[in-house]
Parts: sequence; C-alpha cells; structure tokens
Amino acid sequence: MAEFRVGVLGATGAVGQKFIHLLRNHPWFKVTALGASERSAGKTYREAANWVESTEMPDDIAELIVSTCEPDQMDVDFVFSGLDSGVATDIERSFAESGVPVISNARNYRQHETVPLMVAEVNPDHTELIKTQNFDPNGRGFIVTNPNCVCIPLVMALKPMYDAFGVEEVMLTSMQAISGAGYPGVPSLDILGNILPYISGEEDKIGIEPLKLMGKLENGKINFAEFPVQATAVRVPVIDGHLLSVAVRLTNNPGDIEEVKEVVRNWKNPLAEFDLPSAPATPVRLYDDFRYPQPRHHSLAENGMQVGMGRLRASNVLDIAFTALGHNTIRGAAGCSILNAELLHAKGFIK
Amino acid sequence: MAEFRVGVLGATGAVGQKFIHLLRNHPWFKVTALGASERSAGKTYREAANWVESTEMPDDIAELIVSTCEPDQMDVDFVFSGLDSGVATDIERSFAESGVPVISNARNYRQHETVPLMVAEVNPDHTELIKTQNFDPNGRGFIVTNPNCVCIPLVMALKPMYDAFGVEEVMLTSMQAISGAGYPGVPSLDILGNILPYISGEEDKIGIEPLKLMGKLENGKINFAEFPVQATAVRVPVIDGHLLSVAVRLTNNPGDIEEVKEVVRNWKNPLAEFDLPSAPATPVRLYDDFRYPQPRHHSLAENGMQVGMGRLRASNVLDIAFTALGHNTIRGAAGCSILNAELLHAKGFIK
Amino acid sequence: MAEFRVGVLGATGAVGQKFIHLLRNHPWFKVTALGASERSAGKTYREAANWVESTEMPDDIAELIVSTCEPDQMDVDFVFSGLDSGVATDIERSFAESGVPVISNARNYRQHETVPLMVAEVNPDHTELIKTQNFDPNGRGFIVTNPNCVCIPLVMALKPMYDAFGVEEVMLTSMQAISGAGYPGVPSLDILGNILPYISGEEDKIGIEPLKLMGKLENGKINFAEFPVQATAVRVPVIDGHLLSVAVRLTNNPGDIEEVKEVVRNWKNPLAEFDLPSAPATPVRLYDDFRYPQPRHHSLAENGMQVGMGRLRASNVLDIAFTALGHNTIRGAAGCSILNAELLHAKGFIK
Amino acid sequence: MAEFRVGVLGATGAVGQKFIHLLRNHPWFKVTALGASERSAGKTYREAANWVESTEMPDDIAELIVSTCEPDQMDVDFVFSGLDSGVATDIERSFAESGVPVISNARNYRQHETVPLMVAEVNPDHTELIKTQNFDPNGRGFIVTNPNCVCIPLVMALKPMYDAFGVEEVMLTSMQAISGAGYPGVPSLDILGNILPYISGEEDKIGIEPLKLMGKLENGKINFAEFPVQATAVRVPVIDGHLLSVAVRLTNNPGDIEEVKEVVRNWKNPLAEFDLPSAPATPVRLYDDFRYPQPRHHSLAENGMQVGMGRLRASNVLDIAFTALGHNTIRGAAGCSILNAELLHAKGFIK
Repeated sequence: MAEFRVGVLGATGAVGQKFIHLLRNHPWFKVTALGASERSAGKTYREAANWVESTEMPDDIAELIVSTCEPDQMDVDFVFSGLDSGVATDIERSFAESGVPVISNARNYRQHETVPLMVAEVNPDHTELIKTQNFDPNGRGFIVTNPNCVCIPLVMALKPMYDAFGVEEVMLTSMQAISGAGYPGVPSLDILGNILPYISGEEDKIGIEPLKLMGKLENGKINFAEFPVQATAVRVPVIDGHLLSVAVRLTNNPGDIEEVKEVVRNWKNPLAEFDLPSAPATPVRLYDDFRYPQPRHHSLAENGMQVGMGRLRASNVLDIAFTALGHNTIRGAAGCSILNAELLHAKGFIK
Repeated sequence: MAEFRVGVLGATGAVGQKFIHLLRNHPWFKVTALGASERSAGKTYREAANWVESTEMPDDIAELIVSTCEPDQMDVDFVFSGLDSGVATDIERSFAESGVPVISNARNYRQHETVPLMVAEVNPDHTELIKTQNFDPNGRGFIVTNPNCVCIPLVMALKPMYDAFGVEEVMLTSMQAISGAGYPGVPSLDILGNILPYISGEEDKIGIEPLKLMGKLENGKINFAEFPVQATAVRVPVIDGHLLSVAVRLTNNPGDIEEVKEVVRNWKNPLAEFDLPSAPATPVRLYDDFRYPQPRHHSLAENGMQVGMGRLRASNVLDIAFTALGHNTIRGAAGCSILNAELLHAKGFIK
Repeated sequence: MAEFRVGVLGATGAVGQKFIHLLRNHPWFKVTALGASERSAGKTYREAANWVESTEMPDDIAELIVSTCEPDQMDVDFVFSGLDSGVATDIERSFAESGVPVISNARNYRQHETVPLMVAEVNPDHTELIKTQNFDPNGRGFIVTNPNCVCIPLVMALKPMYDAFGVEEVMLTSMQAISGAGYPGVPSLDILGNILPYISGEEDKIGIEPLKLMGKLENGKINFAEFPVQATAVRVPVIDGHLLSVAVRLTNNPGDIEEVKEVVRNWKNPLAEFDLPSAPATPVRLYDDFRYPQPRHHSLAENGMQVGMGRLRASNVLDIAFTALGHNTIRGAAGCSILNAELLHAKGFIK
Repeated sequence: MAEFRVGVLGATGAVGQKFIHLLRNHPWFKVTALGASERSAGKTYREAANWVESTEMPDDIAELIVSTCEPDQMDVDFVFSGLDSGVATDIERSFAESGVPVISNARNYRQHETVPLMVAEVNPDHTELIKTQNFDPNGRGFIVTNPNCVCIPLVMALKPMYDAFGVEEVMLTSMQAISGAGYPGVPSLDILGNILPYISGEEDKIGIEPLKLMGKLENGKINFAEFPVQATAVRVPVIDGHLLSVAVRLTNNPGDIEEVKEVVRNWKNPLAEFDLPSAPATPVRLYDDFRYPQPRHHSLAENGMQVGMGRLRASNVLDIAFTALGHNTIRGAAGCSILNAELLHAKGFIK
C-alpha cells in the first residue's frame, strides 16, 4: 500500500529508532533503507541497533542491512534524518544534492536561509521556501527541518494567540524529560529525585527558532518575527513529555482571559483540509481542569501528536500565563518530521 | 545547658517532627512538651507519632506524654507551632493570650496587622512590630510567623538586589518537592515520573507574602512593598528542596550582570553580629557553576539553612533571571521558625 | 454488537476503573450499570469518580448514574466485582443469590469450597466447580474469583513446568509496583528512591492461593496441590508490573535447563481452542535475553495480558531460578477477571 | 594529628571520591597523594575530577596535583585502591612490591591465595594470611582486599548465625542501588520507574566470595567454607543501599525463630576490643519493625557502616528468611576498606 520507499539517516540512534517505530504501520511511507555510521554498516539492523523502544523492533526492519549514510547506498524516494549535528551538515547536503529530499530533525540547517523550519500546523506556507533552494540542480532534492523539542509545543501553543492578538514577549521555564537527551543520555545518579537546572545549548535555540517559524514568507524570504523569548531549561525525572510554564505579553491584550481561551479553543487547524495520516484532529487542546495536562498522563494524547495546554490565566507581570505539554520525541522530534513529510507530499513536493 | 523549655504544637505532624528533629541538640531550646489533638493526648510520643524522619526519634522525646494544645497543659517558656491552619487560629491565640510566645509556621496570622512575618536575615527589624500586639495584657505572649516555603528562598534571594537596585516585577516557576505536602501527602501514583502542574493555594501566598516581608516598618505599621509576583507552582518528584526559576525586573537595572553578582556575593548578613546557633554563615550562596544548585545535592548546605542561587544572568524580557533553591522543610519551614526564635531571644523578646 | 449488559461493583475504585477502561471497546461485554457506595449513588460517574486512568473516561460511562451495589438497582446480565474486601462478602453473595453471576477480583470467596479460584489458562476446568454452588436456588447466579496479583503471574509461569516435572518447593521475592496498592495508595514520601520491605497480607495469599489453583478437581472438590511457597513481598518505585524472582525445586528435575526452557516455550495454551477476545496469543513468553523482561518495557505486552519470563537457569540451591513479570492491574486483576468471564461465556456458564 | 600519609589509587573515580570523602576528617589517615590515569596526571584534583559527592570537595585535596599510579610518584605510607579491575592487577602489585601496603576495593586479588578477602568484623583473623605474601622481599608491602558490595552485608548478616548454627544453603535476591554502577553508570532511561533484572558479573562474585570470607585460616591457608549461594541481582531505582532478600538453610536449625533473633542481637562484635575510628558500635542491627530497614532511611545508620537486618522469620522452604541492608558505597566498598586498614594498623601490619 505504501507509496514511498523511505530511508532513515542515523537509524541506530534514539531519534532514528523513533522514526522506525512511528513508521511501522504508516500508510504512505515504508522504511526500506537504514543509514548509520561505518561501525554499523554491513550489519543487520538487529545486530547494529541497541533498541530502546518499548515495542519490539519490527521484524522486517530487523533484517535490513544497515548502510553508510551515502546517497548511492540508499535507493529511496526520500529520507528522514535523525543524525547527530556533528555529521548532519555534509550528509544531509549530499542527499539533497543527489536529488533525495531530506526531512530532518537535526539542527544544522534550521537557520539556513532557504530551508524551511517547519511545524506543519504553524507555518505550512513555508514549504514554498523550498523553491528557493539550489542544493539540487535538478530541483528534486531539498532539505526541510523541524525545530527543537521545546520550540514545537511552544509555537503550537502560541500560534492561536499570535494570530489573534500578537505576541510581544515570551518567558518560559521548560521542564524537560530525560528521553530528550537520547541514550544513554542522562546518568541516573544525576536525575533520580533531582532537577538539573541547566541543559546545554537549549535556551539559545528556544530564543531564536520560534522567530523563524512565526516569520512571514515574503518575496522568497522569511521575515523573522521579532519578540524576545527568555527560557530556563531544566531536566526533570520524567520519561517523556516536556512541560512548559509560559508567560506572554500580547501586542493587543483583550483584557479578558475568556476571550483568549476562546481563541485557543476555536483555532482553525490549517491542516484540516488535508487528510494527513499523522495529523492530530485537535493539534492544541486546552484543558480546563487546572490539574492537567501532566507529562505521564497526557503526552501520548492523539498518539503523542497533540500539544496540551492548561492553567491559562491572566498574569499580573506579563499578560497571560499557561502551561504547555508536548511529547518530546514524537510531537517534538520524529513525529513532527513525519507530519512535515506528509504535508510536503500533499503539496506535491515529495512525489 | 539549654535555657528554655519549649513546646511543640502539632507535634505529631510532619512539621512538628521536623521541629523535634532540628531541636534535638539545640544549645538553648529543649523540647519538654508536645501538643497534639485529642486523639494523641495521653499517649507517649512514641505511640502517638508516625515518625517519618530518617534519624531516629530521640529517646527522651519518645517517652514524653503528649498533651492537648492548651496553655495550661504545657508548662513551657514558649512554643513552636506546626499546627494545621484549620486549628491554628484559636490555639495560637490562646497561647499568646496566656503569656506564651508563639513562633509559628502556620499561615493563619501571617497577614495579621500586628504580627511579624519574618525571615530573620531579611527583615530582622520587624520584631519591633511585636510591641504593637495586644494578645496578652501582660505583654509576654505574642505571635511571630514565617512565610510559606517558596517565599522564604525567594525573598532571601531577592533581598540583596532589592536593597541595591529595587524590584519592580517578579515571575517564577517553583518546582516543589513532595515533602512540602506533608505525610501521607502526594500519592506516589500521581508523582512518580510525572509533574503536577498545580498546587492549591500556593500561588496566592507567593503573590502576597513577599510584599509584607519586604515592607518597611514605619510608625508601628508595615508599609507593604509594591511589586507584582506571578508564580506557577508545580510538584516534582524530588524529596526535599524547592527549586525556583525566577525572573526579575529591577527598578534601577545596573545593566551589568557582574554588578548584580557582586551585590549578591557581598551582601552583608544582618545576623552576623548575633551569634545564633542555627544561622548559616552564608545565608545566600551564589554558585558560578551553571549546573548548580541542585535539590538533591545542595538543599542540605549549611544544615539546610542556606539558600543557593545559580544561573544568574541577564534576561531579555525582564532584567535578570536566576534559580534559587531552599530546603523546604528546614529553611522553608521549621528551621526558619527556629532561627526567628533565636533572633527573638537575642533581642530580648523571649526571655 | 455487545451481547451482555455488564455491571461493575466498586466502580469508582482503582480496580473498578480498570474494568471500565479494559471493557471500553469489548466485543461481548458492555458496561451498563455502575455500583458504588451510598456516597456516590445518584451521581453521574463523572461526578462520583476520581478517574486515575491515563486514557479519558469514556463519554457514555461518564453519564451513567451510579447506584448502590444492590441487585435490584443494577439490571445486568452479570457483574464484575472490584469491591474492597471489607464489603465484598455480603454484596457478592446478594448478587449471586439474586441470579446474577459475579466475576470477582476481591479476595473474600477465593477460599470458599465451591467457588473457583481461576486463571483461565491455568485451571480452566475448575469452572465445573460452579455446579456445586448453591447461592442461587435457580442455578443462575454464582461466584468466580481470580487470585492475587502476584499469584497470577506466578502460577502462569509455574504451570508448564508443574505439568511436565512437578513442583516441590517455591521461593520468591516479589518486587511490586505501586499501582498494586490502589489510589491514593503508597505515599510518595515512602517510596520515591526507596524500597518498602513488607506488604501487609500479601505473603500469606501467595502461600496459599497457588495451591488451590494448581489443585485437581475431583468428585466436585478441589484437592489442593501441596508444596510450600515462601514469599518476600516488597514495594518498589515502579508504576505497573510486578517482577518476581523465583526459585523452584522440581519433583522430577530433568537436570538439563534446556529441557525446562523447551517445556515453557512449547506449552500448549489451553485456551487456544476458544476464541476469547482478551486472551493473549502467547500467555507465557520466555525471553532469552537476560536483560528482559523489565516492568516498564514489557508489562503491556499483548495488552498487558502476557506474562514474561526471563533468566531461566539452573539453581545450585533449589533446581531452577527465573524471573516472571505480570501487569498487576491488568493480567493480575481486572484483565484476569475479564478473561475468566470470557471463558465462562464460551463454556455456557454466562448466557 | 593524622599519623599516616595515605594515597588513593583511582582517585578521580566514584570509589576514589568516596575514599576522599570518608577520609576528610580521619584521625589517623591523611590523604596526601592521588593517583589516576595519564590523562589526569599533572592536573590539580579540582581540574581532574568530576566530583559527584554531595559534600564539597575538600579544599586541601582540590589543590593536590594528581600523579600517575606509580610507587615512585606517590610518597605515602600506604594506599587505598579504587582502581578499575582492568588496570588494578599490575598497579596494585607494583605498590606491594615496592613496600607500600595496598588496601583494595578492586576485585583482582580477592581470590589470590595469599591475599586476605576481609570484612573486619567477620574474619579479622585472616590478617595473618598477609604473612604468607611474598610480593615484597622486605616484608612491608602487601595486599588486602574486601569483597563485593553485596557480599559484605550478606556475610555480616550471616556471621552470627553461621557461628551459632552453621549455614548449609543461601538464596538471595539483591535489589541494588544505582550508585553501585559508578558514574555515569546506569542510564536514567533504563532505570527510572523500572527494574533491570540482571547485573553482569555480580552473581558469580556473590556465589564465591562469601566462601573465602567464611573460611578458616589453617596452616597459612584459607579452607573455604562450603555452601551454595544462589543470587539474583537486580538494579532498582534507589540511590544508595543494597537491600537483600535472603533465605538460609542452617546446619543445626534451632527450630525457634526467637533463638535465632537472640543470636543476632547478642552477637559479640569482634572489633569491640580495638578502638577503631570507623567501626560501628553495632555492626549488625536487627530491626523488629517489619517495615524496616529501608534503603533511603537506614543506609546511613552509623555513618553508613552498620548493616540492618529485618523481617527475620521462619521459612517453610529453607529454614529462615530475612532482609539485609548495607550502604553499598560506604559499608560495601570504601568504608569497608578503611575499616580494614584501621584493623591492620591496630594489629601492627600498617606502621
């Protein structure tokens, strides 16, 4: 049934495994090639990967022979990239240049002028930026990225009010799950019954990525949004699900918190017209119960693709405050890439 | 050696136990009477209390007979109160009226016009407010309170910069340990590998208590400080130690973060002149290492009485951001009361 | 599509909620009546229940009006009981006497002479014991129970070797998840980063229930199996999944551990002939990888109905040692009851 | 005041840090030299070590220059070894050959014929085995080891009943804290809310080390004790403290569990005659309360040097069952080495 043969770059890593897990029954995309480092190349995936997903490794994937991450080693229609940033720059470019679209979770091209930084529901029109890319003279290969795992739920939660009222300032404390650090990742001695008050590199990304995403595509360029975002990113002993405590100053504060709630609740899902297999019916759900959402109970809502908001209330310092929850390795990483790919297919970029 | 016979009100509860634990070798204060509910009265403390401290119940305390919380049942020089707010109003008043000073961790009198709300290092001069009290016509009984477990590290961290630069606005997310909810407190099914995004009643206290504490005593009244404090209080799977992620707008921002750091580091401890047994040598410690302070490793610094600050940096939304850590049941509760009592003794209020 | 109208007794409790959760899409059984205490009766289930499942409360269930646990208040074909043992004796009997079959997770009738104590795959023939019951003169009402949450994975893991080699002695340490204590259950202050070395009442049940289950039905009576079972039951900071470390002395030790492994792997599922909706395809799975099974990763195998075994090896004290894992609230409680009910329907007892 | 200049081998590792931590105020032993790998040599300890203890790195230690682990680089009276087993064989031998006593926590020489494997309270007479060593022709250098972190509490708990009744068979499940795996050690993704049912290499050591320890020194040789020990070693989400669930068959079962309890309670501490600074007053404490001991609350009893026993009861499979708890990095590792060294000094081996 699946129409596309798909490769996964960085297939043995935590993000690569999540791609494989999420695509195991995908109606359009079938994983047929796995790229990893020299060390893994030539082995079956079963031998090469230290599988950390709870569901079992799919049997057909297990028997695939891992190759290096080279375009001539992977005969596919497009690739998902879960590559480490240390190697992603050259590899992703080589695929794009060879005519293979790259849908990447790596950070390397997020700020590249011609590369869309996308969350499908937030800036679906940014796909047009692809047309300005010149990686591939034949016009088939390109690169599309998604943002960091905190930025995704952040921009999704902000989007309805950004459209309705404008956003002037954003402050947040992001309480981040251990799965965000990959495997082996955070040592248990560091995090059991503890909080680590600093996550290297995270706050800078949170400060800049939303501005490109919220930016306007004009004359083939993204005019970045302009508002300061100040983040404190901490690690908490939670398996999956980043919980953000956010405060926002609005450009035009309606002054009535109920009006803000209505805007969130009535936000028109821009993907509703497409029928994308991984798209959540309700991308952003506002919980009324102040006890929700919670990482352990609500991260997997709509298969981990829904962002939960809660505690939406007026703030006496900025204008409003709320919490936002996103499953960091699904909605905040591999799932976001997959949904981007589905949109790209629906729009004819992947064919 | 101990000069004072001390009673503990609410002796079987978690706060009461912490008082007993912290006072077990105190040079001035000796616990000689234990007050609890009718249900416990008449039993030995060993029978009456479900001891939850890790150190063993002191043998001499274990054999004390618990009484009801009535002044004529407890022949002591003063009392510490760890009472539930449901019963504290009448009981604390009855002791004060009977001439017994009450040093209370309960919230009931925190906003009473003549009752000091104190953190010994922050507003030691507020002891003078006691002189306006008229609970006891003989002038011996009085009530002194300390704030909520989040407010204590918050005001301690704010105090140096408040004095130097003024504070205009405060925002915080407080990540609070489970011991703050007492025993049995938070069900493990709720919090293991999870975050609870709401703690009932907490944010209101955080919004108001700092303003009284930071207020000026003028003409026998507290003129409250005036700045908005917006808090998001969440529960995290940590045993002890509330970690606060704070942002502050200063009245006079020096514009140089190093200057702010110097102010914190050079803050003159107002208790240095006294020689109080429970006073930390350095009430507020600023860590330079961005990985610190952490709840599990640094809450017990200076026997749990020191507040740790970290990650002090400029904010592009408000002026500065930082983290603050306080041991919630020591510095943030019983230990704060004990230090208040020591100061009150040093100043001649308890004699 | 569902053929049977089903009631849940103790519907607001943790076990009752699990019944509702597991039955939400059941092809045969539809929950149409909810029984709880006087306090809940008359309210909608949404009002009455403090829902602790991660999936949302089914909408149709939410609007049901809770009744008391009385046969004339619940017009159903049969009931599942998640009642507390403090009230189960009378209530369960009253339903049986009124002609309503009771499939119970409560312990009250487990040792009743005419009541089957069943794990559907282990002693399916014990259903015949129902015919000796005389609760209901009309012969329609009866009671069937399932064992304690540790006994279920224990007897399932033992069954293949019990049949092949006989069992002489069993020792185990059961490391039990917090969900086994219900809600609110274990205080987080007790269990976070800790082990509680004793669970009241648990070890006695483990010592006796397997003997009835493994017993032979002869002349309308169960001849109990006879082997000592010594258990140490401890609580660990795990959400779901009891992990058992077991050692067994066999009656006829084959002396070759591979032979034991073969017996486990080739065990013939006695339910294979029936086509029961909740029956796992492989009731007992033996993992070869010594790192498996683990509570967090493998408890939900086959929707939580499979028991995992691992580390099967020779013991130099008893004969063999292994680990066994069962999801304590699904396989070990509500799921076991549901599977028992399915078997009872297949055999014509529920009609 | 300290009489001895002490070196620590493997000073930057987790065990090395624990030695430094425990010796920071030792009355006899002063750490004056730190040995580590080439990579660390030449740096100050502050630069070289990733300090993981909660207490701060002692200032005097922080300024020491780390050397390689060579006798001529470390001018000390004796050394403690926290070396990895991968390098310990040659390094420890070189120190012993050079006349420097080695008190080692490494496993390499535990089974060496002339090297004592010691827990000071259990087999203090085994020090005599040193006299059979010929590492150092001058007779000053020697090697003494202590067993694995599970064996230490196990043999301490067994010792009283071993002496009184004899031991025939031992079975145990050891639930082991994450600190036992060093740093970074166990990934948090593996252990948060989970149990790992296998710890590589652990069970073999538990099977053999107790037999040497319990052995008799006769004619300059250890005649090993002979009883099978079958262990299942699992990792649990606990910071410090291994909890053992043990069952024992006695040679001469008194048949009265109270008699066994008395033997444990009245066990004569063989170190009582010495006045060793790190020796616990009560090496083995039997708790009557079935809820105790627990890892988080009781591991640090007597500064982490006491072993707690609980739940002592008759077993219907073997003879008796109990739990035992030991702080794995203090009593079970560095603290055991230090106590061994103190005994060796008291007996004149270190001078």
